[in-house]
Amino acid sequence: MATVLVAGGAGFLGSHMCDRLISEGCRVICVDSLITGRRENVSHLLDDERFTFLTHDVAEPLQVEGQLTHVLHFASPASPNDYARYPIETMKAGAFGTYNLLELAREKRAVFLVASTSEVYGDPEIHPQTEEYWGHVNPVGLRSVYDEAKRYAEALTMAYHRKHRLTIRIARIFNTYGPRMRIGDGRALPTFITQALQAKPLSVYGNGTQTRSFCYVDDMIEGLYRFLVREGRETGPVNLGNPDEVCILDVAREVLRATNSGSRIEFHPLPLDDPRTRQPDIGKAKQLLGWGPRIDRQQGLLKTVDWFKQMLEIGP
Amino acid sequence: MATVLVAGGAGFLGSHMCDRLISEGCRVICVDSLITGRRENVSHLLDDERFTFLTHDVAEPLQVEGQLTHVLHFASPASPNDYARYPIETMKAGAFGTYNLLELAREKRAVFLVASTSEVYGDPEIHPQTEEYWGHVNPVGLRSVYDEAKRYAEALTMAYHRKHRLTIRIARIFNTYGPRMRIGDGRALPTFITQALQAKPLSVYGNGTQTRSFCYVDDMIEGLYRFLVREGRETGPVNLGNPDEVCILDVAREVLRATNSGSRIEFHPLPLDDPRTRQPDIGKAKQLLGWGPRIDRQQGLLKTVDWFKQMLEIGP
Repeated sequence: MATVLVAGGAGFLGSHMCDRLISEGCRVICVDSLITGRRENVSHLLDDERFTFLTHDVAEPLQVEGQLTHVLHFASPASPNDYARYPIETMKAGAFGTYNLLELAREKRAVFLVASTSEVYGDPEIHPQTEEYWGHVNPVGLRSVYDEAKRYAEALTMAYHRKHRLTIRIARIFNTYGPRMRIGDGRALPTFITQALQAKPLSVYGNGTQTRSFCYVDDMIEGLYRFLVREGRETGPVNLGNPDEVCILDVAREVLRATNSGSRIEFHPLPLDDPRTRQPDIGKAKQLLGWGPRIDRQQGLLKTVDWFKQMLEIGP
Repeated sequence: MATVLVAGGAGFLGSHMCDRLISEGCRVICVDSLITGRRENVSHLLDDERFTFLTHDVAEPLQVEGQLTHVLHFASPASPNDYARYPIETMKAGAFGTYNLLELAREKRAVFLVASTSEVYGDPEIHPQTEEYWGHVNPVGLRSVYDEAKRYAEALTMAYHRKHRLTIRIARIFNTYGPRMRIGDGRALPTFITQALQAKPLSVYGNGTQTRSFCYVDDMIEGLYRFLVREGRETGPVNLGNPDEVCILDVAREVLRATNSGSRIEFHPLPLDDPRTRQPDIGKAKQLLGWGPRIDRQQGLLKTVDWFKQMLEIGP
């Protein structure tokens, strides 16, 4: 039976990955420091005998008894608010965390998957971004604690592949949304939805013409799972995301419709180093994994709004 | 009295820095793992009571008793040959080494200087490179173990400055040459000089039109020293190097002249990700430090050739 360690398994993506792996019949060891992860995200799995939860910061070495077939690294503060609040922890998750998990994968002869990010492309100068693009990141900018940590994680993962022949997967994950995003994590969608549901003005930074491409979490997990179980050793990084590009102002309007909110939109100054545009080229994922997103934003937003209503204890 | 810890102090640049600091009246604690550093580089300092040598890999935490006024991080494999041979160690020096030394500087309330590199610019798309340029680095390329480790080191250094108000210096060091470079470290100048002195063909990669800018080590140390002792807290990264750009083929010819060698030049395929061009814009260093290189390549080459003759035990 596959035994999968999911670091960051109590986070947004990590917890959905735990659900999927359990539903596929795997045993899952979920490791989370709970700095930004939430035990509630996996509390429904705690009674399952195939599921184990360990509170541990992967920036510290970890030992696991028995076999592991796969080691997945989703552990990191991942929203701009979170990594502004935990800059050193974010950098340690990318370097120390990746190192410790690579060492574990090497010891267990397990497949290693690292959750990288579209942030490795920074403020991109090509559009959409293919995996061959080297990125445009300010190494000393405010966002560099996340961007450079993830670039480092990719470089270290490749080094382990080249040096130790480790089987690796580097997934460059673009913006993803859905249930279990945290209220107040600072990302556009949770912020808009919370504001709309609480009848507060929606905060748009800049003039709202900057674009994003939002992938619903079920689509993302499907892509990650296919990438994980794919035969073959090394493919280089693979983009996963939804190429359906939309400007932030339109997203705000869509959230107003999905929530039936009468809130107005309020404009704020654009933060430094905020990417102007971001859209995945998913040609490689399509070809390698036969994968593409299937859930459109209207559907995805409704499911996400439902979840935020529960969290905010707002009736249907 | 200033007490300076120099990590990587038995390496090429680190050992020259130790010399300079001792000559300025500082106490020096030289720390080196001796993976690529050489004890011989500092053996002449071992009898000085102000000089202490510790064999230690800064990728492991270190404790130092007493006061430190400055912590300098020069520890890393630094030539393409070295970091191809020690990819994981190189990545650890950049992340774990920087972290441990930043923690030490924070504990001691010391000024922290990190030896960064022109490699953070990768294969640059602007010419010459100013400090504002974000670079063009392949995060999963063969050179990424060095380039991404150094970008990470810069990001972590900035994070400590922002989070803990640590006084920091980020020096982006361009190609430097002089005595104590290692024979066989794979860099152009030591390779050319060794080949020329041994009457072997000089290996030029590609057609030799790729350019480099070589700074003599005494100039570099002067710049680093001025940067270190400068008043004021934070300047962002500062380029240090010699803007006198030359193509590799011309350098090979200059080496033939400086060595009176009859060797011929032999062309080899260009390695992957080799930067085509590299030239520092040193306007910021000039303005902040009143610094610029003073030793031209003809002088510098003669001094360097003399040193290689000693190493190779070739008479004058």
